[in-house]
Amino acid sequence: MHTYMNIKKLASISGDFWDVTDRAGLFGLIVSGLGDGRHRTLDGHEFVNMSSYSYLGLDTDSRLVRAAADAVLAEGSLNTSTSRMRIRFPALEDAEAALSELFDVEAVTTASCAVAAWASLPLVASGLFTEDVPPVMVFDKNAHFCLNALKAAAADEAEIVTVAHNDVAALEELCKRHPKVAYVADGVYSTGGQAPVRELLRLQEKYGLFLYFDEAHGISTLGRNGRGLVLEELGGAITDRTIIIASLNKGFGASGGAIFLGPRGSQHRKNLALRNGPLMWSQRINTAGLGAVQASAALHRTEEFARLQKRLQTNIDLFDDLVQTEQSRDGLPIRFVEIGSEDATVQLAQNLLERGFYASPIFFPIIGRGRAGLRLMLRANMTRTEIETFAALLKELRDDLAPAGDGTR
Amino acid sequence: MHTYMNIKKLASISGDFWDVTDRAGLFGLIVSGLGDGRHRTLDGHEFVNMSSYSYLGLDTDSRLVRAAADAVLAEGSLNTSTSRMRIRFPALEDAEAALSELFDVEAVTTASCAVAAWASLPLVASGLFTEDVPPVMVFDKNAHFCLNALKAAAADEAEIVTVAHNDVAALEELCKRHPKVAYVADGVYSTGGQAPVRELLRLQEKYGLFLYFDEAHGISTLGRNGRGLVLEELGGAITDRTIIIASLNKGFGASGGAIFLGPRGSQHRKNLALRNGPLMWSQRINTAGLGAVQASAALHRTEEFARLQKRLQTNIDLFDDLVQTEQSRDGLPIRFVEIGSEDATVQLAQNLLERGFYASPIFFPIIGRGRAGLRLMLRANMTRTEIETFAALLKELRDDLAPAGDGTR
Repeated sequence: MHTYMNIKKLASISGDFWDVTDRAGLFGLIVSGLGDGRHRTLDGHEFVNMSSYSYLGLDTDSRLVRAAADAVLAEGSLNTSTSRMRIRFPALEDAEAALSELFDVEAVTTASCAVAAWASLPLVASGLFTEDVPPVMVFDKNAHFCLNALKAAAADEAEIVTVAHNDVAALEELCKRHPKVAYVADGVYSTGGQAPVRELLRLQEKYGLFLYFDEAHGISTLGRNGRGLVLEELGGAITDRTIIIASLNKGFGASGGAIFLGPRGSQHRKNLALRNGPLMWSQRINTAGLGAVQASAALHRTEEFARLQKRLQTNIDLFDDLVQTEQSRDGLPIRFVEIGSEDATVQLAQNLLERGFYASPIFFPIIGRGRAGLRLMLRANMTRTEIETFAALLKELRDDLAPAGDGTR
Repeated sequence: MHTYMNIKKLASISGDFWDVTDRAGLFGLIVSGLGDGRHRTLDGHEFVNMSSYSYLGLDTDSRLVRAAADAVLAEGSLNTSTSRMRIRFPALEDAEAALSELFDVEAVTTASCAVAAWASLPLVASGLFTEDVPPVMVFDKNAHFCLNALKAAAADEAEIVTVAHNDVAALEELCKRHPKVAYVADGVYSTGGQAPVRELLRLQEKYGLFLYFDEAHGISTLGRNGRGLVLEELGGAITDRTIIIASLNKGFGASGGAIFLGPRGSQHRKNLALRNGPLMWSQRINTAGLGAVQASAALHRTEEFARLQKRLQTNIDLFDDLVQTEQSRDGLPIRFVEIGSEDATVQLAQNLLERGFYASPIFFPIIGRGRAGLRLMLRANMTRTEIETFAALLKELRDDLAPAGDGTR
């Protein structure tokens, strides 16, 4: 018991931090959107969201929104009311075809990226994708919660090992000792940083390592046509020993998630995934979301999209010029401003919000204890002024905070 | 290993059946909707869906569809692009308030009913809802896949026991021997039948038994204002030792799922659920789905809705007059026509489809091996003629099938 999780302990440690967050008015803010990452609370306070994962600003793109409304009206229903295994709308087929073509993979859509994990990771552990031999499942210590939450299920199918963050040497040792190994990691980590994809691909070539990546934050944000960090490193050609899960919500700007099961036309793998896990049940993206997925996939192929990616990089560079973080100059859109004390972090976030900027305070278990801070996410649709004003304000408010700080800065 | 699941074995047994289903043209049919459970395939073949879980016909209700489109256009976005823990749209708040009021519970919405299970069942196992003492988790043998799939995760928090279907005596024995026990079951089982809710409530009163019900097929279908089997037996007053998960897709006609955490105003429980599991991550119903949820919740309070429930019961009665099944006269909308042989079942379904009726062939692992058959679902928006024609056709085609049968009928 408590080999993989201890929910009660986690709840008892993080509960206080959440209570503080709640009292500071930073928990479950109810807001309407003003477009381009700006929001207004019910009592009229306006702010810029500095922690929005809509990296390219597609979440309020009127073409995606219109496509969502049109799709549900055109089909006259949100769902087929029968498992997708049995009966599905053309919108589902078309959305998956569009994704498969865009990223040159065999894509299956899911209700969310976490569901994509649930629908594929235990299958990998069972050995269905590695010649029916359950691989030793090696998890990066920092792999996303939704992957860690599946460790117990995976442990019922295979041996589980957790290695230190980005510890390629430890992974290589395991590759030498076991005939089948699968590595489970994020492409872009939600708290900053990335996987050493090139080195991992070397291990794949050398040992046949199976790679399983959560690209929730990589897809759309990076790579040609937004194919993400991993596919970009693969030169766009996914191998048959790689599975990528992705969000179609975050950077993609639509709804749901997806599993990239391997090269296009991997019908056998697609059948395995559809028939042996949560995809069998009645979960899928509704027609509105599927309409937005198709519109976003089309947009990903355009010059305009390439310009949005460039604008994002310009904004990341500008931010890095103004605010020093551990992630500076890594080219990724996630920045972590470590404060240390949970209370000081929440206080800072509260002060920022009063001055017109929302920044997410994050703490245990998202990050280690006593290492709390603000998670910032850059977007293509931030203005230069917004970034500059925020950076100046952050400096001012952090300096104010210093005397009350606990010295862990 | 393989204490709770054996995916590879499952895949190897069910794979052949799925292949047969696929070859028969009954796998992943792509269809457009014609309303009221009727569909047309891409090559123009029209049929009535006899296995649609839209029990009240709400999936094609134009008011729900319009509300979905309106909600996404009004908000100008499908999502807030920040975890709901931090920032949410009024549509999410309003939908949860509408559900909480309608069913007199503390309702939290989720991306699907399966996600509702993932977001709450491990928490129950951890003891967070039973005075911090992990309860012995007793699963009904027939509990839905999405619950069984969480056994391994639950086993990392508590002791797991599986009892025979509806075995109240075995459950009572466990209640006598252990201070905390939680029972995990479906309200209405997806393959037919129901939980002995009244007897379970007796155990709850006597021993403090915690009850966890999947009401995916019960909500909307049954009870006052569609409150389902369990809440109806509770006289509408959920106890603080009961959690119900529900689909907002199936009978409800919208999108996603929900967790009914206990009596209205259980803010502590809501916080526990939001802060300590998958609800922390970025999963939620998109604004289109939330618009439909609100419209459906309003409809659930009307006389019209009560008439739909009556019409459903009339159709169930008519079907029971014409086709004898094990479930006859149980008042539930799910009927299982056992055929026995998997091949014969698929053949029968193929013949029915040719003659204008889709009926889902189901087999292992949904049902025991060699016990294949058709799962039928009655709807309020089936016509008398549709039911009569189908019943006659089913008789004719089953009789035709008999000589080729394997005697297991």
